Amino acid sequence: MADTSSLEQLIQALRRLPGVGVKSAQRMAFHLLQHDRASMRVLAQALQEADARMRHCALCHTFTEAELCATCSDPRRDASQLCVVETPADQAAIERTAAYRGRYFVLMGKLSPLDGIGPRELGLGELFERACDGVVREVILATNFTAEGEATAHVIGEALRARGLSVTRLARGVPAGSELEYVDLGTIAHALVDRR
Amino acid sequence: MADTSSLEQLIQALRRLPGVGVKSAQRMAFHLLQHDRASMRVLAQALQEADARMRHCALCHTFTEAELCATCSDPRRDASQLCVVETPADQAAIERTAAYRGRYFVLMGKLSPLDGIGPRELGLGELFERACDGVVREVILATNFTAEGEATAHVIGEALRARGLSVTRLARGVPAGSELEYVDLGTIAHALVDRR
Repeated sequence: MADTSSLEQLIQALRRLPGVGVKSAQRMAFHLLQHDRASMRVLAQALQEADARMRHCALCHTFTEAELCATCSDPRRDASQLCVVETPADQAAIERTAAYRGRYFVLMGKLSPLDGIGPRELGLGELFERACDGVVREVILATNFTAEGEATAHVIGEALRARGLSVTRLARGVPAGSELEYVDLGTIAHALVDRR
Repeated sequence: MADTSSLEQLIQALRRLPGVGVKSAQRMAFHLLQHDRASMRVLAQALQEADARMRHCALCHTFTEAELCATCSDPRRDASQLCVVETPADQAAIERTAAYRGRYFVLMGKLSPLDGIGPRELGLGELFERACDGVVREVILATNFTAEGEATAHVIGEALRARGLSVTRLARGVPAGSELEYVDLGTIAHALVDRR
């Protein structure tokens, strides 16, 4: 296929997407070229617009098109609570519960020394500055309950408690709607220790 | 996330790719925006270039940037053999064997009545015209050995044999390097019937 360089380039470009290998990229390229030219134009434009417009909120670091994101610029949000999450997707999950009316700090990642992501790369300095602005009274650590998420929460928690702030962590326990028989032992053990 | 319309549009555009659901699209969008802005520009350009440049070879229907693809315009290829495949990926697989020096006709699909793809939509008329050009002596049916691929091969084979052409099908049998114990029964039965 020596004369199909733009096809080959498209396959290579699609492989840059996370989770897309060479077979998937081929299938995507053939599908688009054969059946869905419109989507090629839509996707190309969406990529360019998002690249040009999306930046980080000056306060909470989530993606936004403005200087401040909608949550940070909403005066009805309680500025005394600051919820720390790893990603905008985690933030969106918490927002969907409608159970939290405070503000956020989005790490846009997690501590991962093996990948060279330490406190500096994660911008923890800015988080500490924000948390110590005199308005924030409670910092809620809502990083994931994975090894790296727990480590991130631990490091942030230690640093903020040393600065005299009230720091809480999302409760660990049995998920809603689940039967004990099928819940893993670590979760049950945590639920026992944290019983109320 | 009311002020993130270009992010939402990017996620929706990524979902148009085959095999990409809403979670994957979110993950791709966040990854690109956070870690790989360069790939956004590369992919956008690759999509636009492929859309603008790629068309179908006038002879064999595969993707090409020129009027004729490299295989069709290569005078060293044997014009008396015509191999019918479903997709450019299948053609590429056969080319990698280096066991075939004839020409191709790429269906760019298969008969699939449930999806409204009949002989007309598949361009079988053009295949029959090409096969009956007086130069082609043998048509090798190399559609997939799936139900739809077999049906497609059957329809094409019947039509071309009625026109007096020699039609062959890729051999069915035991894959190279496999142990009989682990080969499915249908394949062994075919290998017995087609023994030589």
